[in-house]
Amino acid sequence: MHHATTTTAAPDTPASTGRTGLWLVGARGSVATTATLGLAALAAGHAPATGCVTAAEPFDGLALPAFGDLVVGGHDVAPTTMVKQAEALAAAGMIPGHLLSATRDALAAADAEVRPGYDPRQHHGSQQEAAEALAADLTAFRRTHDLDRVVVVDVASTEPPLDLLPEHEDPALLRAALADPDRAVLPASSVTAYAAVLAGCAYASFTPSAGMTVPVLARWAAEAGLPVAGQDGKTGQTWLRTVLAPAFTARGMRVLSWAGTNLLGGGDGATLADPVAARSKLTSKNRGLRDLTGTDVTPLHIDNVPDLGDVKVAWDHVHVEGFLGSRLTLQTTWSAHDSMLAAPMILDLARLLALAHAAGVSGPVPELGYFFKDPWGSDVHGAAAQAIQLADWARRTADVAGHRP
Amino acid sequence: MHHATTTTAAPDTPASTGRTGLWLVGARGSVATTATLGLAALAAGHAPATGCVTAAEPFDGLALPAFGDLVVGGHDVAPTTMVKQAEALAAAGMIPGHLLSATRDALAAADAEVRPGYDPRQHHGSQQEAAEALAADLTAFRRTHDLDRVVVVDVASTEPPLDLLPEHEDPALLRAALADPDRAVLPASSVTAYAAVLAGCAYASFTPSAGMTVPVLARWAAEAGLPVAGQDGKTGQTWLRTVLAPAFTARGMRVLSWAGTNLLGGGDGATLADPVAARSKLTSKNRGLRDLTGTDVTPLHIDNVPDLGDVKVAWDHVHVEGFLGSRLTLQTTWSAHDSMLAAPMILDLARLLALAHAAGVSGPVPELGYFFKDPWGSDVHGAAAQAIQLADWARRTADVAGHRP
Amino acid sequence: MHHATTTTAAPDTPASTGRTGLWLVGARGSVATTATLGLAALAAGHAPATGCVTAAEPFDGLALPAFGDLVVGGHDVAPTTMVKQAEALAAAGMIPGHLLSATRDALAAADAEVRPGYDPRQHHGSQQEAAEALAADLTAFRRTHDLDRVVVVDVASTEPPLDLLPEHEDPALLRAALADPDRAVLPASSVTAYAAVLAGCAYASFTPSAGMTVPVLARWAAEAGLPVAGQDGKTGQTWLRTVLAPAFTARGMRVLSWAGTNLLGGGDGATLADPVAARSKLTSKNRGLRDLTGTDVTPLHIDNVPDLGDVKVAWDHVHVEGFLGSRLTLQTTWSAHDSMLAAPMILDLARLLALAHAAGVSGPVPELGYFFKDPWGSDVHGAAAQAIQLADWARRTADVAGHRP
Amino acid sequence: MHHATTTTAAPDTPASTGRTGLWLVGARGSVATTATLGLAALAAGHAPATGCVTAAEPFDGLALPAFGDLVVGGHDVAPTTMVKQAEALAAAGMIPGHLLSATRDALAAADAEVRPGYDPRQHHGSQQEAAEALAADLTAFRRTHDLDRVVVVDVASTEPPLDLLPEHEDPALLRAALADPDRAVLPASSVTAYAAVLAGCAYASFTPSAGMTVPVLARWAAEAGLPVAGQDGKTGQTWLRTVLAPAFTARGMRVLSWAGTNLLGGGDGATLADPVAARSKLTSKNRGLRDLTGTDVTPLHIDNVPDLGDVKVAWDHVHVEGFLGSRLTLQTTWSAHDSMLAAPMILDLARLLALAHAAGVSGPVPELGYFFKDPWGSDVHGAAAQAIQLADWARRTADVAGHRP
Ligand SMILES: NC(=O)c1ccc[n+]([C@@H]2O[C@H](COP(=O)([O-])OP(=O)(O)OC[C@H]3O[C@@H](n4cnc5c(N)ncnc54)[C@H](O)[C@@H]3O)[C@@H](O)[C@H]2O)c1
Ligand SMILES: NC(=O)c1ccc[n+]([C@@H]2O[C@H](COP(=O)([O-])OP(=O)(O)OC[C@H]3O[C@@H](n4cnc5c(N)ncnc54)[C@H](O)[C@@H]3O)[C@@H](O)[C@H]2O)c1
Ligand SMILES: NC(=O)c1ccc[n+]([C@@H]2O[C@H](COP(=O)([O-])OP(=O)(O)OC[C@H]3O[C@@H](n4cnc5c(N)ncnc54)[C@H](O)[C@@H]3O)[C@@H](O)[C@H]2O)c1
Ligand SMILES: NC(=O)c1ccc[n+]([C@@H]2O[C@H](COP(=O)([O-])OP(=O)(O)OC[C@H]3O[C@@H](n4cnc5c(N)ncnc54)[C@H](O)[C@@H]3O)[C@@H](O)[C@H]2O)c1
Ligand code: NA
Ligand code: NA
Repeated sequence: MHHATTTTAAPDTPASTGRTGLWLVGARGSVATTATLGLAALAAGHAPATGCVTAAEPFDGLALPAFGDLVVGGHDVAPTTMVKQAEALAAAGMIPGHLLSATRDALAAADAEVRPGYDPRQHHGSQQEAAEALAADLTAFRRTHDLDRVVVVDVASTEPPLDLLPEHEDPALLRAALADPDRAVLPASSVTAYAAVLAGCAYASFTPSAGMTVPVLARWAAEAGLPVAGQDGKTGQTWLRTVLAPAFTARGMRVLSWAGTNLLGGGDGATLADPVAARSKLTSKNRGLRDLTGTDVTPLHIDNVPDLGDVKVAWDHVHVEGFLGSRLTLQTTWSAHDSMLAAPMILDLARLLALAHAAGVSGPVPELGYFFKDPWGSDVHGAAAQAIQLADWARRTADVAGHRP
Repeated sequence: MHHATTTTAAPDTPASTGRTGLWLVGARGSVATTATLGLAALAAGHAPATGCVTAAEPFDGLALPAFGDLVVGGHDVAPTTMVKQAEALAAAGMIPGHLLSATRDALAAADAEVRPGYDPRQHHGSQQEAAEALAADLTAFRRTHDLDRVVVVDVASTEPPLDLLPEHEDPALLRAALADPDRAVLPASSVTAYAAVLAGCAYASFTPSAGMTVPVLARWAAEAGLPVAGQDGKTGQTWLRTVLAPAFTARGMRVLSWAGTNLLGGGDGATLADPVAARSKLTSKNRGLRDLTGTDVTPLHIDNVPDLGDVKVAWDHVHVEGFLGSRLTLQTTWSAHDSMLAAPMILDLARLLALAHAAGVSGPVPELGYFFKDPWGSDVHGAAAQAIQLADWARRTADVAGHRP
Repeated sequence: MHHATTTTAAPDTPASTGRTGLWLVGARGSVATTATLGLAALAAGHAPATGCVTAAEPFDGLALPAFGDLVVGGHDVAPTTMVKQAEALAAAGMIPGHLLSATRDALAAADAEVRPGYDPRQHHGSQQEAAEALAADLTAFRRTHDLDRVVVVDVASTEPPLDLLPEHEDPALLRAALADPDRAVLPASSVTAYAAVLAGCAYASFTPSAGMTVPVLARWAAEAGLPVAGQDGKTGQTWLRTVLAPAFTARGMRVLSWAGTNLLGGGDGATLADPVAARSKLTSKNRGLRDLTGTDVTPLHIDNVPDLGDVKVAWDHVHVEGFLGSRLTLQTTWSAHDSMLAAPMILDLARLLALAHAAGVSGPVPELGYFFKDPWGSDVHGAAAQAIQLADWARRTADVAGHRP
Repeated sequence: MHHATTTTAAPDTPASTGRTGLWLVGARGSVATTATLGLAALAAGHAPATGCVTAAEPFDGLALPAFGDLVVGGHDVAPTTMVKQAEALAAAGMIPGHLLSATRDALAAADAEVRPGYDPRQHHGSQQEAAEALAADLTAFRRTHDLDRVVVVDVASTEPPLDLLPEHEDPALLRAALADPDRAVLPASSVTAYAAVLAGCAYASFTPSAGMTVPVLARWAAEAGLPVAGQDGKTGQTWLRTVLAPAFTARGMRVLSWAGTNLLGGGDGATLADPVAARSKLTSKNRGLRDLTGTDVTPLHIDNVPDLGDVKVAWDHVHVEGFLGSRLTLQTTWSAHDSMLAAPMILDLARLLALAHAAGVSGPVPELGYFFKDPWGSDVHGAAAQAIQLADWARRTADVAGHRP
């Protein structure tokens, strides 16, 4: 590590963990573009870091990479550039015009670092070759920008659920299948995850797609000493539910049912209009809730409402039993620009996984569960409890990182 | 302490802190009657202890008085008995008919322990005499029922805010004023609180009334080695706000405004229809919120809607700034029988203050802040943080109590 | 007609259209039981006719059968009596205990008039025989109680949508199929409707089931000079939508999307948990809305939430374009006991179809569209416009009825 | 009338009622600026007339002035130009940037027609002189632009309620007081209304201020043969209430309580933060509701929430009694840009009052009650009934106007 290169750390803040690459899979999507534009705005001082967990205490006192030390690149399979995507988001009223103007060059620069992703419908050759090509992109990116490390974050379109095959659980079988040009044993998200392992990158999955959950891949990541975190960003309705549910439990109350519905447009709305793709999402949205409340009456819907654009509106109806069999209801209506919730978390994850990598943390990081609907390595779903775990972990890990050579 | 008298403790639960009196000021009101009826139902096994914080872990493993070890008495200035009050609450659909039948005798027995409270409009003589008469009721109650201790809980009608006088801050001046039959220097709630001190009782204020907040009284309570806790039960909307607000802060978001409105009927609705009485309540409802969010745009209303009866409906509109100046809104609608929220907390407070008293805790107990809108001795308002403090405190205090002779 | 038998008409109210039978198909269900209990309570003066359209002007001045002139009977396939059903509804908090006590005898009397319905899973023999047996029940009921006429109202469980067969459109084919003991060409609801035609009864369909919509049946009803009305009671969310949607149109605004969700338990909740049965309901719920707004972005869900019992909670999110492309949102949350909404409408339909029958109206009555999600013979869906049509029609028809011999 | 000058009427649309001045009192406020900008956008074809009642049938077939035939001028007491106001509204996200660009010149032209209004704090001299000066502005405007008629619409800041004086009811006393330079017997809104009478202009009051309600002024307007309409624009929450309340009544249901709260920022929010000014508004908001429902449990609040800008969020909780004493609740949450609701109604009123003037209608026009919370000359509050009255009146009046020389 050479802390000397950090650009924005003030004299009295701790040394940063160094220049870090943030490699976005799905780089031209709504979340990735908002994260990239936001990072540029933050690094240049055009906007405060509101919405970033790591901007406040205790994280602001720890040796995380400064926003100015993050360099963006990524994979995508779509031709629309980040600049075009940002223009569309600005026209829809999500991104303020003055921030778009101020970051246009930075977006263009990031987009210049975007390489063609793995597209199963286009690819010829074995998946091993595909993964190696993606890994080569990562390695080149790290070298070109003289980065201490690269964190890969999957923010690509949600895939349908994966049915586990024997190959997914047996290294030898998987290696053979990957080498076979006539097979496509892994979904795209897992080819991506494999590439991160090959290139020695920390990795986070912000989607419900299979990605690193293929058992053999998870094992290879751990063997390679890489920290990984997932899965499916907990940004809105699910976050709210995991704030509320433990609070009812602490009151000794019994949740009878928790019904919800989601309305959204945008790219994610269109993807999830496909019931098969939506299944992954609905499952991961309900897992924590059932765990926290003990009820399985949790009907949930996602509707594609194109006229809402990137705004997600979520309604929840919670029916609770209290003292002497009495009933109470709580309804919540949440309305937010979905990508504006996700983007700062992407930056948080980049900073925290950089820390984990610097400290030599390897395998799933349960304490990053705060960011995910379906936390790897953890059964803790309550947001308040997760926030405490996260802060403790970050302090401890920063300590370890600070003492490594 | 003679634990032998505990009636419901199973062999493997810890020894109870003994037979405890629960003395309710405002004993014939909605909250008090519901608590008394509920206690009888719980003790007799007619209902589970849903809604009681102390029924779940870690509290269920600690030496708190068993529900069956609590004996109820109280003061009130109204002639309607608890049985009549319970019948009215059952007719309004709040209390199930079968529970009323099952507890009718217990209610009548408790009502037989209700003594005339201090009514400023009726009283002749000095306030010192009034307080001593109330204290004599407490002492007689303790003796008659052979109680280890008595916990006084104020659940009387909310009073208007108190303007502090020099007498309230100077023991000598207060003593003189109390002795003067032509003066009424204390509001009724504070005469009550003073009586608790005179009788050596633990004390909790579930209302926003002045009660024990008169500085000289607070000092006398501490000097008498009595644990006290307050103030204004945090049962519904305010509880919800203190669950949500810290969660936004943890996300690095900025609450811009938090507007709310409350609709309720019942006795409390009628009392708070008086804008002067409502002022105490509105102030204590907003204090924590402002502290937690940093905004002072927190308009709040309480409306008397008689047709709602004891149901409280509360709507909140939260306007939040997130990443890059984006805005999100959260609306919540809460609908609950207010007394059903409050009653189990009264039982919790009786059990926990009995523990505190047994352990020799004296003065305000900040860790009981979980139960209050305006926690004495504490700046912590977030419900999750308070829950952790409460559990830690209860464990530690049970330890101390267990080692006292 | 012999108006002399009317029992409750005051001297100055117009002569009633006579003693009328109300034959409920699904007589032991929640809606039917509530209607029967309510009718008894109204006739005996135990409750005002709140919630009945026909209790207010202009209907209260017209010659409709008095509540006391309605006699209830019906078909059902379930063994649980109306008294048991009413007890269950009372235990669930929907029906007040004192009304149950006051009407217990009347309910038992009505239940004594309930005959076994047509159950496709049990029936042996041809559907013609089945329909004739049901018709014989109707005829016997009319004769026994000396009724001027009988109105059949279908409030049985919702059936899955029907795929039209050639038999449904061709009288000869249908007759042949009905006679064939090995075929079951009609769904239960249509066998019922056919029975009403055979027995010369007015008929209303409060469900989305096929019933009288089989084209040949509708023709036979018209040929028999019978008034029929349908379909699918417009009681809650859909009613609200048809109140609101025309109001937006009158403002020159454009509805972009109207998303909704329904939570309910009870018998209807369980039935509609079956996605196939729910399909009929969802279709008829959305038809009017699309017609009124012009948008087809109307995602809608029905969820079975058993802990809600007979309470239906419906949330709608309306996204509207106004001046200069501006957007507004309206959210509505509706919470009501579903059967309490439906029951008075059943009584209204009985009274109004009795009037239609007395006036010789034949075939679908478009002006009764006010009561239905999917109004037969009408394209008018807006509730305000329907209310005007209904009042005009009732006045005119009462006039005609008054002049018939 | 010289219809030849109309610019946008297509060959087959009826002849317009001619070139019409729209004189906005409060011309630089949010509503007035939005109306002016919108008019320019509509006239130039940059936006459709969504949100305008008169753009749809039956009004689109009647001889109303075309949008292109309306010319804007006005009075204001503030120096900020319409262009600046529009820029602020665009920055706040209410007005789309491209429409601001497209209408900037038209806004500047309209602002050039804005004359100093009557400001009681600045004025020296008698109110008679003040009114004559304002009237002279109106006359000059009509002459300069060669207008057939001018419609004055008051959209100035809401004033506190007026206490009626003897002068307000007696012409001679009023004349004397107006002539007295040491008295200010009329509020600003009424000086304005008087000026409209002096200049022979049709007049509408979109605010709850006293304006033309001073009895002597109303009489003078009628004597001068001028049509007047008011009062207080019914644009959002109140409109919604008058849509819903009659619908409950038609169902035979009984509204028990209707509680509401309003959150808004912007200029109107700041004005109404003053409880005295808010009183006028709260009164006119509740009048119709009480009339329609018969309940007087209608608590209502208006809160200034600056961070909401021009967005108005309104929550209503409706508690209704239905069949057999059952209860239902309806909650509505409305969120809209307040000025976007009001602006098209201003254009509608200009067109319809031009028609009234052309047809020789004089005095209060009850059928314009559709647009107002407190309809002059009418007891009809239900929105659906008002819409029917309005359409009938417009047809009849267009007929009359068409036959006048
Ligand atoms: N609040 C949130 O926004 C939120 C929360 C949780 C999870 N997520 C998840 O984040 C993901 C991104 O959401 P979004 O709104 O940006 O979606 P989006 O549709 O705007 O963007 C997805 C991007 O992924 C790209 N892509 C698709 N397949 C790819 C592949 N094989 N390789 C590389 N790129 C590929 C697409 O071309 C597109 O640019 C989704 O999976 C979503 O479920 C978002
Ligand atoms: N969720 C809740 O119910 C909740 C939450 C927080 C605080 N509180 C507070 O709890 C208190 C009780 O609420 P409630 O709904 O039972 O009200 P209530 O009106 O039903 O009962 C109040 C009782 O106090 C009695 N009282 C009045 N003055 C007295 C005096 N001087 N001495 C003795 N008794 C007196 C009255 O006669 C009445 O019986 C209120 O102050 C309320 O603000 C309730
Ligand atoms: N607000 C409302 O309640 C509402 C509104 C619109 C429509 N509906 C419709 O009204 C119907 C009744 O609703 P419910 O809540 O009373 O349901 P329910 O399940 O309580 O009652 C249905 C009854 O129909 C009986 N039944 C089933 N098949 C039958 C057959 N072949 N012949 C005779 N009886 C039969 C059942 O045994 C049961 O007693 C449903 O179709 C529902 O969709 C109700
Ligand atoms: N949906 C709505 O926006 C709505 C609905 C009903 C009524 N209204 C009423 O419309 C009015 C305007 O609302 P707004 O949001 O545009 O308010 P605003 O504060 O933006 O504008 C009011 C304008 O009136 C001007 N003004 C004040 N006193 C004046 C005087 N004596 N003569 C001339 N001009 C004067 C002010 O300078 C300001 O430019 C308010 O009274 C409001 O209550 C608005
Ligand atoms: Na997990
Ligand atoms: Na139809």
